[in-house]
Amino acid sequence: MTYLEKLRHRIAVTGSGLCVGLDIRLEKADDAARAFIADVITQTAPYTAVYKPNSAYFEALGWEGMKLLEETIAMIPKDIPVILDAKRGDIGETQRYYAKACFDILGADAVTLNPYMGRDTLEPFLDYQDKGIYLLGVTSNPGAVDIELQTLQGGGQVFELVGKMTAQHPQAGLVLGLTNATPETLARIPDVPLLIPGLGAQGGDVAALHGAARTAPCVVNVSRGILYAEPELTFAQKAEKWARVIAGK
Amino acid sequence: MTYLEKLRHRIAVTGSGLCVGLDIRLEKADDAARAFIADVITQTAPYTAVYKPNSAYFEALGWEGMKLLEETIAMIPKDIPVILDAKRGDIGETQRYYAKACFDILGADAVTLNPYMGRDTLEPFLDYQDKGIYLLGVTSNPGAVDIELQTLQGGGQVFELVGKMTAQHPQAGLVLGLTNATPETLARIPDVPLLIPGLGAQGGDVAALHGAARTAPCVVNVSRGILYAEPELTFAQKAEKWARVIAGK
Repeated sequence: MTYLEKLRHRIAVTGSGLCVGLDIRLEKADDAARAFIADVITQTAPYTAVYKPNSAYFEALGWEGMKLLEETIAMIPKDIPVILDAKRGDIGETQRYYAKACFDILGADAVTLNPYMGRDTLEPFLDYQDKGIYLLGVTSNPGAVDIELQTLQGGGQVFELVGKMTAQHPQAGLVLGLTNATPETLARIPDVPLLIPGLGAQGGDVAALHGAARTAPCVVNVSRGILYAEPELTFAQKAEKWARVIAGK
Repeated sequence: MTYLEKLRHRIAVTGSGLCVGLDIRLEKADDAARAFIADVITQTAPYTAVYKPNSAYFEALGWEGMKLLEETIAMIPKDIPVILDAKRGDIGETQRYYAKACFDILGADAVTLNPYMGRDTLEPFLDYQDKGIYLLGVTSNPGAVDIELQTLQGGGQVFELVGKMTAQHPQAGLVLGLTNATPETLARIPDVPLLIPGLGAQGGDVAALHGAARTAPCVVNVSRGILYAEPELTFAQKAEKWARVIAGK
C-alpha cells in the first residue's frame, strides 16, 4: 500500500484528517521520555489520520535523540502513516542519503521537503514509489512574506511554482499554512494532497478548507494543542476534540 | 573568537580558502569509518581553512552515524572552524531546537540554512553571536533554475532577496554555486562571506572570484576531489593541490 492509500484509508476510518504533530519538548532521551511518547501515541491513535514527528526536537537531544526518534516511529501502529517533518533539501547526490535516512533507517511513510533548490532535490525521494513527499508551499510563519509570497515577473507568487512542481508528481503534496494562505491563495493551488500546519497555537481557520472543492487528501496538524495545551484534559480528549474541529463537526 | 574571526585567521595561516567537504560515503559507523575520517583530517588539516561535514551522510547511518558526526567534529583541531552543512529551515520555535543540535550538541562553528521560509528562521541561529550562518543563494545543481533563478516583478532574481537578507546580518554569509552563478550574478550580490560549492566533481570556475573586489572571506568547497578522486595521491597531496588552485596559484 502506498503512503497516499494508507492515508486515505486512515482518514476514512477516523472520519477526520487529524495530523498529530509529535513536536516533543524533552530534556533527555530517557525512559521517562519514552513513556511520555508511548502514552501520547496510545491515547491519540484512535483519532489520528497521520502522525508527524519533527526531527528538530529529537536532534536537539543528540544521537540519543535520534535513537528515540527511531523508537518513536516504531511505536506507531502500522496502519497509521507517519510523515517525518524534516524539511530537507540538498543536491540530488546528497538527497539520496537523506532519503535513506528518512525512509530506510527511520521508517517514515512520507517526509516534508524544502523546494528552494528545485527539481533534482525531489528525485531521490520520488524513487521510493510507495512513499510520499510534501513540499513547503506557504508556511505559517511571519517570514513567509520574504520569499514564498513574493510576486514573480509575469504574475503569480513564488509558492505557485512549488504548487506546479507538486502537481507533476502523484506522490507529492503541499504544505500550506492557513495563517498566510488566503482563500484566494487556496484557489490558486492545484488539487494536490495538503498538509496544513498552523492550527491551534499557530492560529489559522480550517473553515476555509471545507468550502473548497478538493478531492486529494488533506490533513491538518495539531501539535501543541494536544501535547501541551489544556492540561486538565487527557491526550485522548484533546485528540478527539481536534479531530471533530478538523472534520467541521 | 567569533566564527568569522577564526575563519579569517585560518585563511591567513593557510594562504587559501580551501573548505574540505566531509561528505563521507560509509557503509557503517564503525572503527574503520572513524579511522578513515581521522586519516582525512590529519592529512588535510595543514591546508584547510574550514571543514564542512554534510549531515546527510551521517544521518544515513542512523543514530550511530549521528554519534560519528559528533566524534568527527570533535576530531577537528580547535583552530580550524567547522561549517555543519545541514541546510535546515523551519519556523522560529523549531529552529531553536535545530540551532541547539548544530551548535550546542554537535559543536559546529557555523551552519548552512535554507532561506525559503524567511527571516524568522534565521533568528534562533543568530542568537548565538559567536557563530556563523550561510544562507543558500544560488546552488550548484540543475534545479537552481526552478526557484532561485526566477525573475521577480520589478526585476532581480529570487536569490537576490537572499543576498539582501544576508547583508543585514554580520554573522551571515551566502552559498553561491559557480556552475549557476555567472560573473553578472556575482556582481549583483553584496560583499558578504561566501561559501562556494561546485568545484571539482560539481564543476565551476574559481577564476571568476579572483577578479571581483570582495573583502569578506570566501571559501571554496572540495569534497569528492579530495576524498575519492585520484586515489594514487594522498589526501594531503590532493588538499595541497586544491588549496593552490583556490588561491589562484
